[in-house]
Amino acid sequence: MSTIADVASRAGVSKATASRALSGRGYVSDETRQRVMDAADDLAYVAHSSATSLATGRTQTVGLVMPPIDRWFFAELLAGVQESLLSVDYDLSLYGVPEGTQTRERLFETVLPGRRFDGIIAVGIQPSARELERLHRTGRPLVSVGPYSEGSSAVSIDDTAAARIATEHLIELGHEDIAFVGGATDAAALSYGDAQRLEGYHGALRAAGLLAHARVVGAAPTMPGGYAATAGLLGDRRNRPTAIVGVCDEAAIGAIIAARRLGIAVPTELSVVGIDDHAHADMFALTTIGQSPRDQGHEAVRLLIRRMAEPEAPIERVTAPSSLVVRSSTAPPR
Amino acid sequence: MSTIADVASRAGVSKATASRALSGRGYVSDETRQRVMDAADDLAYVAHSSATSLATGRTQTVGLVMPPIDRWFFAELLAGVQESLLSVDYDLSLYGVPEGTQTRERLFETVLPGRRFDGIIAVGIQPSARELERLHRTGRPLVSVGPYSEGSSAVSIDDTAAARIATEHLIELGHEDIAFVGGATDAAALSYGDAQRLEGYHGALRAAGLLAHARVVGAAPTMPGGYAATAGLLGDRRNRPTAIVGVCDEAAIGAIIAARRLGIAVPTELSVVGIDDHAHADMFALTTIGQSPRDQGHEAVRLLIRRMAEPEAPIERVTAPSSLVVRSSTAPPR
Repeated sequence: MSTIADVASRAGVSKATASRALSGRGYVSDETRQRVMDAADDLAYVAHSSATSLATGRTQTVGLVMPPIDRWFFAELLAGVQESLLSVDYDLSLYGVPEGTQTRERLFETVLPGRRFDGIIAVGIQPSARELERLHRTGRPLVSVGPYSEGSSAVSIDDTAAARIATEHLIELGHEDIAFVGGATDAAALSYGDAQRLEGYHGALRAAGLLAHARVVGAAPTMPGGYAATAGLLGDRRNRPTAIVGVCDEAAIGAIIAARRLGIAVPTELSVVGIDDHAHADMFALTTIGQSPRDQGHEAVRLLIRRMAEPEAPIERVTAPSSLVVRSSTAPPR
Repeated sequence: MSTIADVASRAGVSKATASRALSGRGYVSDETRQRVMDAADDLAYVAHSSATSLATGRTQTVGLVMPPIDRWFFAELLAGVQESLLSVDYDLSLYGVPEGTQTRERLFETVLPGRRFDGIIAVGIQPSARELERLHRTGRPLVSVGPYSEGSSAVSIDDTAAARIATEHLIELGHEDIAFVGGATDAAALSYGDAQRLEGYHGALRAAGLLAHARVVGAAPTMPGGYAATAGLLGDRRNRPTAIVGVCDEAAIGAIIAARRLGIAVPTELSVVGIDDHAHADMFALTTIGQSPRDQGHEAVRLLIRRMAEPEAPIERVTAPSSLVVRSSTAPPR
């Protein structure tokens, strides 16, 4: 097999230059890069990245373990991670946590331990103790994004506080009958972060002496989930809440759409507040607790880079900023 | 540096077994895997994947080049690609095509040529001739997802036909004044696929002798984009179309939300048809042309695996299925 020295010699450059040209890391002129790549082609030189990583023990790759990403939060977070990794010349290996127990188990037990990356970012997966142990067993630095951070550096907003502030906003407007849309359903348990949001809702009601009014409606944390749950909730005219806290903006937007379809005016007949400041929140004039998953992606990479440099440093817990954004989906009750 | 032979010897297993245990490819008992991993830990054996790929010239990794993915189509497609790659034990390196000319150029000119993967899937990026040439320069098999497929195997629906069928559906219901929401805007040109959809709309009007009625409204292919464009379009009461073709379901759903806010009933006063069968289409009772980006992801991996096995085989062009899904957002004009 050809070596980097063969390629360098054929192209008439130093080994260091050939390595820069082939790895894409560091400056080489276009003309030189072309000459080196032609030489590599001629010699059928293939495994340059592998050779580099064999020599350095580094793969220049970060593994990202994430649930299916058809949600704004995950898409934004992924974009942030990609931006930061590109700026430090790291590649991203993406591992979607598959649905179904067996393939999920296979990912943690078999696939991840043998794959190539220098560090791992795990997003919102609340791995079981065993899954977490497997990630640690890979021996590579681990950073989580989300409220679950046992044994790793982590970044997320304070989900409990976010839902508490959202609920307090409604209480301060004078609402007493406030429902929470986005509880556990028959089909699915709450995620760890969503469970903390539910706790924040209960906490705010408790502090205001309104706990007896608590009403939690099961709903998937999606627009159709919030739509269906709210349509059911508002169907009973005699027992309608005056306000709704959505577990996330997607559920809250679904609630607004359901209210409009039923001819219930938002905010005069129903106030709705969400959590996220989703890309669509502005279009629905949604009052919400804003957060930036993209910035959290940047922060996760920063934490991981630091841990890869100093594996023995103490773990860090970063609370990402979040704050109330008042638009016009909330008002005092009639 | 320790070798796989050192690890095998310390763990008391064959080199083949040690390799299976560390790569996660092929069967090893839990107990053996643990012993091998302990031995690897003890010996600080790190670069196993790299060593494997140096020996085989294979990285068992596929590069996926994709725009930012905060849209249903890309998220579903990514999920399909991941499912298929997991089933054949390939890793996924994800390269988001960054916004901004300079970082985009850097990705194609410098980053991709030097990175490790056995093949590339490029999604909806309509690379310039130069970008495409750079991808081919990597010397690795290339499959594109989308209508632009110069020189590579490719899969996508027939975008022209999809928009033509959507428009014909409205014409058959009796509509003559049909607007297209999702044309180019000042800020952005149409993507190649969206340009083909616009062509399909024009083609259907032309065939029906209605080309003089064509009205194209610039809009980003998103829910807020469709919402804003439709709000503007419907604002002039004397000149309202009776039907709208959205460039995609997201734009069409934005159009429905805008109509509802203006008190215009869908479908009695305005028919709306989209393209995609987005996860939210059912919630809005949207008539649309359905497609499955997840299946297209599976197909892209199948095409790539075949090309990696036979690099000299002729390129293949697969047209993914799409079909009219009639719900209740379309009706004859009043």
